[in-house]
Amino acid sequence: MGVNTEPVFSDVPLGDCELDLLKSGVEPGELIRPMRLTASPLVNTIADDGLKKAVIAFGQPDVASVMTSPLLRWIHVSSAGCTRYDTPEFRQFAKKRGLRVTNSSTVYAQACAEHVFSMMLANQRKLPLALQSAMGSDDPKWSELRSKCQLLTGQKVLIFGFGAIAGRLVEMLRPFRCGITAVRRSPKGDEGIPVVTVADCSTVLKDADHVINLLPENSESTGFFNSSRFAGMKPQAAFYNIGRGRTVDQAALVAALETERVAAAWLDVTEPEPLESDHPLRKLSNCYITPHIAGGYQGELEELVRHFLENLRKFNRGEALMDPFIEG
Amino acid sequence: MGVNTEPVFSDVPLGDCELDLLKSGVEPGELIRPMRLTASPLVNTIADDGLKKAVIAFGQPDVASVMTSPLLRWIHVSSAGCTRYDTPEFRQFAKKRGLRVTNSSTVYAQACAEHVFSMMLANQRKLPLALQSAMGSDDPKWSELRSKCQLLTGQKVLIFGFGAIAGRLVEMLRPFRCGITAVRRSPKGDEGIPVVTVADCSTVLKDADHVINLLPENSESTGFFNSSRFAGMKPQAAFYNIGRGRTVDQAALVAALETERVAAAWLDVTEPEPLESDHPLRKLSNCYITPHIAGGYQGELEELVRHFLENLRKFNRGEALMDPFIEG
Repeated sequence: MGVNTEPVFSDVPLGDCELDLLKSGVEPGELIRPMRLTASPLVNTIADDGLKKAVIAFGQPDVASVMTSPLLRWIHVSSAGCTRYDTPEFRQFAKKRGLRVTNSSTVYAQACAEHVFSMMLANQRKLPLALQSAMGSDDPKWSELRSKCQLLTGQKVLIFGFGAIAGRLVEMLRPFRCGITAVRRSPKGDEGIPVVTVADCSTVLKDADHVINLLPENSESTGFFNSSRFAGMKPQAAFYNIGRGRTVDQAALVAALETERVAAAWLDVTEPEPLESDHPLRKLSNCYITPHIAGGYQGELEELVRHFLENLRKFNRGEALMDPFIEG
Repeated sequence: MGVNTEPVFSDVPLGDCELDLLKSGVEPGELIRPMRLTASPLVNTIADDGLKKAVIAFGQPDVASVMTSPLLRWIHVSSAGCTRYDTPEFRQFAKKRGLRVTNSSTVYAQACAEHVFSMMLANQRKLPLALQSAMGSDDPKWSELRSKCQLLTGQKVLIFGFGAIAGRLVEMLRPFRCGITAVRRSPKGDEGIPVVTVADCSTVLKDADHVINLLPENSESTGFFNSSRFAGMKPQAAFYNIGRGRTVDQAALVAALETERVAAAWLDVTEPEPLESDHPLRKLSNCYITPHIAGGYQGELEELVRHFLENLRKFNRGEALMDPFIEG
């Protein structure tokens, strides 16, 4: 039981080892590989006829092609973000067709949480500045740098978007005795920390030392962090984004950082990616940008395949799937 | 009870607020300030006659002057490191005279632990490299950078020197489910993690992903991390030093980093400080140096004074002192 006999389409670019692992996990079902692989949830996809023969798709299948692939019953998205499938039209189509969509958030949650945590600690210890400095303790700027450092312990953290990443982050922050609050569309009561809705977030936003944006991109979240949100933060606050670039009004962020209305920004995602080399955010000394690598780690592709194969076994056994995005 | 009437000498450089706090905490006892203040445990001190009238000293009093100050009964060192007092001669003198020595390790432990932790996470997420990069996901070097990142979760950590900083670090690492071992002169059994002696450390050294040097500087630890210790680490290991520069044979570290025998070094302390701008360690792309700021944080001077005053109350009440270094 659990052996796969369904044709599986996968456009995930893989190394030889991971491809072998995927093939043998899918057998005796057929593995259908398209002509062009899709590396990222952010690039445009192209139509591929291979999808028409598939019951299961693992990767980033083209939305228009999905809609004209009558056999398809389950899509396992190879990223944590599902932007291309997160539209009312697609959700409606999936519900109607009984098409299920899952994602790979479990694969990336730990790396993403470690990435944002590394940014938080680098912010507290002023690492970028400190690593460039060659001062001695007799330099007046040395005492200044030391006193710019701040303990993370006891500070206030506000997380926008409560999913797998936030859950890991809350666990990591526990020894630091931070006051943590999350903002969530529909608080469920099982988060283990105080949760408020967007409508009620202004008071906690004003108090937070660290504002962490983990929001997915959809019609509600586009431009969510705008000038009025930045004006609602305290000037000492640091802002982090490892969700999606479009959830931030970047012109408003530039203005907030230029006037030091917000002390610092740490961004793993921007709009576009990569950000133009002459973009104002690149020139600000209080803006730190990493090139969308928060989810990356040694062995991630193998984990990605293993996670899909575990879900494939569950699918074939009729069990509940991990990381559901659209229940179908 | 606990009110101070003893003359207190203090050469700690303080701002107006912290000095007022110290004065009012010492009253009605006299606060004796020398002509020259001593900012760091690393600079040479000079003799000061003020010490001759003091029963208590708070700061970095000159060793020769201490030995000729007959009234002195207690020194509270204003740093975590006590190198200048950590000699067999001074220990013998103190024991004979009943002179007690305490330090300020509680004041700096959290900041030091957060600093080394920020270095560990920056190492895992390749932050220095990532912050300089402006690559898009279509660049082959992008995948390379992503896959250079490693999860901290589940890795092996080896800590040399088990005191207040190590204790905090162990607590911070708990959510990461790391295998942590400490190396300690005399294991006490209450460390809560496996502890080995130096004689038995080669097996754990060979396995460690992170080798953290928190050793104090004394005759036993000078040059402790030499070419044979570096050769005993695995090539993927990262080495951290937030103890004292002299505990590392820097020429051996240069060779280990040049040949990638050790993957990376993160140093907050060097010999000398600051390290010469043309020192080989400054030119290695896998060596990251911060300018001895691990213990620094906003409000540290106030905390330093408060910690001394708390110990002063204990001293005057005849209670056990915090952070004992020489029991007297």
